Parts: sequence; C-alpha cells; structure tokens
Amino acid sequence: MTNKETNLQFRLAARPVGMVKDSDWQQVEEPLRELADGEMLVKVLYLSLDPAMRGWMNDAKSYIRPVGIGEVMRAGGIGVVVESKSSRFAVGDYVQGGTGVQRYWIGPADDKSVGFRKVDAKLAPLPTYLNTLGMPGLTAYFGLIESGQPKAGETVVVSGAAGAVGQTVGQVAKQLGCRVVGIAGGTEKCDFVVDQLGFDACIDYKGGSVKDGLKQHCPDGVDVYFDNVGGEILDTVLTRINMKARIVICGAISQYNNTTPVKGPANYLSLLVNRARMEGIVVFDYADRYHLGIAQLGQWMKEGKIHSKEDIVQGLENFPQALNMLFEGKNFGKLVLQVASE
Amino acid sequence: MTNKETNLQFRLAARPVGMVKDSDWQQVEEPLRELADGEMLVKVLYLSLDPAMRGWMNDAKSYIRPVGIGEVMRAGGIGVVVESKSSRFAVGDYVQGGTGVQRYWIGPADDKSVGFRKVDAKLAPLPTYLNTLGMPGLTAYFGLIESGQPKAGETVVVSGAAGAVGQTVGQVAKQLGCRVVGIAGGTEKCDFVVDQLGFDACIDYKGGSVKDGLKQHCPDGVDVYFDNVGGEILDTVLTRINMKARIVICGAISQYNNTTPVKGPANYLSLLVNRARMEGIVVFDYADRYHLGIAQLGQWMKEGKIHSKEDIVQGLENFPQALNMLFEGKNFGKLVLQVASE
Repeated sequence: MTNKETNLQFRLAARPVGMVKDSDWQQVEEPLRELADGEMLVKVLYLSLDPAMRGWMNDAKSYIRPVGIGEVMRAGGIGVVVESKSSRFAVGDYVQGGTGVQRYWIGPADDKSVGFRKVDAKLAPLPTYLNTLGMPGLTAYFGLIESGQPKAGETVVVSGAAGAVGQTVGQVAKQLGCRVVGIAGGTEKCDFVVDQLGFDACIDYKGGSVKDGLKQHCPDGVDVYFDNVGGEILDTVLTRINMKARIVICGAISQYNNTTPVKGPANYLSLLVNRARMEGIVVFDYADRYHLGIAQLGQWMKEGKIHSKEDIVQGLENFPQALNMLFEGKNFGKLVLQVASE
Repeated sequence: MTNKETNLQFRLAARPVGMVKDSDWQQVEEPLRELADGEMLVKVLYLSLDPAMRGWMNDAKSYIRPVGIGEVMRAGGIGVVVESKSSRFAVGDYVQGGTGVQRYWIGPADDKSVGFRKVDAKLAPLPTYLNTLGMPGLTAYFGLIESGQPKAGETVVVSGAAGAVGQTVGQVAKQLGCRVVGIAGGTEKCDFVVDQLGFDACIDYKGGSVKDGLKQHCPDGVDVYFDNVGGEILDTVLTRINMKARIVICGAISQYNNTTPVKGPANYLSLLVNRARMEGIVVFDYADRYHLGIAQLGQWMKEGKIHSKEDIVQGLENFPQALNMLFEGKNFGKLVLQVASE
C-alpha cells in the first residue's frame, strides 16, 4: 500500500425526492492521507446495500440520525486492513463495520461510530457476514422470534421472501416447525425460496393475486406476518390474519420512495376484530444478544439447514444504480456491492 | 302485567350504507304472548347504545355475527322481571343482558345468548351497570391494563375522552399514577374530563390542532394511546409516541359510517422507528375476569375516586336518532336510552 492511491467516496449531495437520482450523489476522488498513531487503513471489499439506506437520506426523525449533506453515505461493509498504526487490528485482518460507501476507510481503529470487529474468512464467505450472519440475518432472527413469537404448527407469512431479511425469516421459521409461505416478485424468486430454501409455498405478487395466494396456501389463516414491504400487500395479509396474530413491521420498501404520503394499512381494524398486534422492530435493540443469534444461525448454516443467497454487483462506480435495484425489486437475494477483490 | 300490552321492537330492515337511516329500521308492534314454563317477561328499562352496534349491522366477518335482516336489533339492556315461570328470576328482580332494542324481552330465563344476570339497584344507579360497571368500563379497565400496560409516571392519551370507554380509561390511568391527557370534541367535554374526572389535560379536537395540543400537554411524548376514534387523530398521535409505546385499538368511530374505504394510519411506520406496538382488544376476551374488574371499579367508585357519566335519552321511539348521536359526537358521556320507568 502506498499513499499514491486515491480514495473514491460517494457523498450525499442532495436529499432525494422519490427515487434516488445520480445528481443526489457527489463522487469525490482524493489522495489517501498518512496514518496517525492508532489509525488504520481499510480497503473496502464488500458493501451491504439495504432498503434502510433510503431512509437515512431523508431529513426526518428516525432511529438513527440522517446522513448529512456532504457526508460520505453510510453503509455497512467488510474490508481488509492494508495498513495499521494500531495494536487493535493487524494488516491482513478482515474487518466488518460502518465503512461507508468508499474505496478506503481511514481513521482510528477503535472508532466506536464505525465499530469494526474481526470476521473469520475461513468460517464463511465474506458476503455471508453482510447477510445471514450480519444485520439482515439478525433482524430476521430476533424480529421473528421476539416479536413474531411463532409456535410450531403456526403459519408464518413473509414478504420480500427472497430478500436479505425475508430469506432468513422463512428458514428460521421452518426450523421452528412452522408452515412458511413467502411473498416475492417473479417465478424465479418464488421457485428459489421453495426449492432451495424449503419454504412450503411462495406467492408471486407480480404474477397473480396475493389474496388468492393466501387463500390457497394459508388454509388455516396467518398467525405471524413478517412485513418487509408495506403497502397493498400488508393490507391484503391483514384480511387473512388469525385471532391473536402477530404482525412484525420490519420495513415498508414499497413506500420508501413515495412522493405522496405513505399508504397506511386501511385494514388495520382487522387487528381489533382479531385481537391481533402489529409491532415495529429494529435490530439494534438486540445488540447485547447478537452473539447468540450469530451462534445459532452459524450452527444452522454449518448443518446445511439454512442457506444464504447474495446478489453481488461489481464495482463501486455502480453504487447508485445498484442501490436503486432494491426499490425496483431487481435484486435476487441480499444485495452486496463488491468494491474490490480480496 | 296482562297480555293486553304490546311489545314494540326495532328490527333491522336493511343493511345501512353510511349513516343509519330511518328506513333501515322496521318498527314492529305486536301483542305479548303467554309465557311457557321456564320463561320470563322482562320490561326493558335502559338500553346501552354503543358505537359497536354500527358494526353489527354490516354483513362482514367480525368478532360477533351480524344482526340478520328482520331480526330484533342487538343491544345490551337492563330491565325488571314483570312475570316469571322460572325459578331463576323472580318478579321484581333487576336483570342485565342482551335484551335487544324492544319494550319487552320474553323467553327462557336461562337463554345463554342473552345471558341475564341480576343487578343490585341499591349498590349503584341502574345506568351505571351499562357504563362503568358494564361493558364500557370493563373494556376500559382490561384494555388499558392488559394491552396498554401503563406504568406510573407514564403519559396516557385517550380519545373519545368523555365517552363511555374513554372516561373510565382516563380515570383508571390516573389511579395507576399516570399523566392523563384526553382528546374530546368541544370545551364542555374537555372541561368536564379535567374538572370532574381529574384528567391532567384535554385537547379539544374541534377547537384547535391536536398536534399542538399533544406538544403542549405531552412534553415527554406518549407512552400509551388508547384509541376509540381512528382516522386523523390516530395518525397525529402516532407522530408523538415514545419508544416502546403501546397503542390500544379499541374502536374507530370516525370510520364506522364510511362509504369510502377506512383511512389507514399513514404514520404507522412510527411503530417501526419507535419499536412500538398497536394491538386490538375486545372485551369478551376477559369474560372470565369480569368479576375482578367490576370489583375494582366498584371499589374505586365507592371511594369516590372514579365517576360515571351517562347521557340518558328518553323513549324507545327515539332509538334511531339516539344511535346516530354517537357518530355525530353529540352524546356527552355514556349514551343510554331509557325505555321505561322502574
């Protein structure tokens, strides 16, 4: 590593209205500076692209402060330490943390806002740490178990079934003895979650009526609905819930680029009729138990009981288009941007 | 009592569209028949008029079967036994049960679908048994405590604050050590819940902005929202909830006469941001503990800690107009129709 190399950063240039446009980003290329004591230089290998990133770009009160105009876009990533003036990490260590959307991360190795921790490249492919063994997997695991509280024999429905969170929700629910029905867009995704991930059925919302699909595949109604999409699909599932059903609100990807107000669930009074509940979850709340979730998910992966599916797009320069794939339903599996080779 | 008297019944003639019209009712006057063994004749004194009755008139799946066309309209009531061929109740007993909207109830004294039980007219005025010591009071008591789970020092907001359920929700929350803010229509209702019932504040939704009122009166945010109204008010409260807030969905009176689809809560993603939950409740689920609720509410009433406010309209013939008062926000306190004098 020499400081003749340059860093490339994607900074937030403007707060997007609706879908993110190229002009909402500012690409900045600048030379890498020298390290101070306690600092390290991380070459970013993989970035996690997540629906939540769209929310971080809005100037609105949320569970995390918005990315400021002119700031490097926030993103979780995995990289390799290429230079270190810290005893914390050594050159060659693979690390995971909030690298941001850039080619290199540079700063104090113990920066708490970035929260680097080592990952073991021998235990699992690196992208897996951004998926099943990362935030999406933990969101699925804790959200389903803690808020969804599925019991063996119950019917669990999950939207965004082939997506990062949905794929693990369904597989964990199967491990818990539930009937699992996914909702996804397109036959390829639907076939995948049934054939490869072991879901009992999957409803193709692009290819037919979700209502009919629920009638067919959930003959005993819906006990747990894990919602990643909001909008019409949430409203349709609400018409099929059972008494004391639990709806886990994890996201609402159908609504994130709205320029009109969010579509509220018009059928929410089904909660009343069915004494059901709808609860929002954010993975950060389970931080003190992440290790337990990772241990269980890792064990199931090792035993071949659950699988991890990533959709890897190449090249940092493709970040803007890659991010928008999420909102067009174009990714197939957890969306990861590969920034560099190991 | 002689069988020369006639019964007057309000039967459902048509399923209403929007507000209930006079033509949706059929008034039937017919002679009273002789009693068979095991039967009794009850002279109805008071009928409970409730927002839920509007739902029972729709041909839709709900927590209770719809009233059929041509059937006597369902209603809870209190009456006095005027003739009895049953050992279960004696002439002069005051009884409470599903009398229906009629001048007399006649049938087997042990009819489970009606569920008559004795009430003690010496312990409390009879209308109180349709309010604080009846379904509204029990809905408030169990819904607030079981689903709202308020803790001392927390802020509880309740809409329909001067209504049947709301008045008891607020007073019970005060007994539990909460800060209580009501939402009601008009200064008279607002003054009443603050001055007479001891709420800490009340927001007049007709006289100003609910949002501003919440900012002013809930400086620490909202921990529990007990919702009787739905619509815009629910949406506004959603913008002010705290982390881990509990929203109790008890009703949505603003939406019951809609001819357009129900307005879903557009701000429901506040549940996600705040890891909050929204849960529907129906009082029937607590039937095995009604006696505990009545004992506690009765004790508080006896000690003068909570009060009961009824709005009593005279005359069975005024039933259609009286019922519509609920949806126009015209009742002040629990709405009761007095059918006859004791």
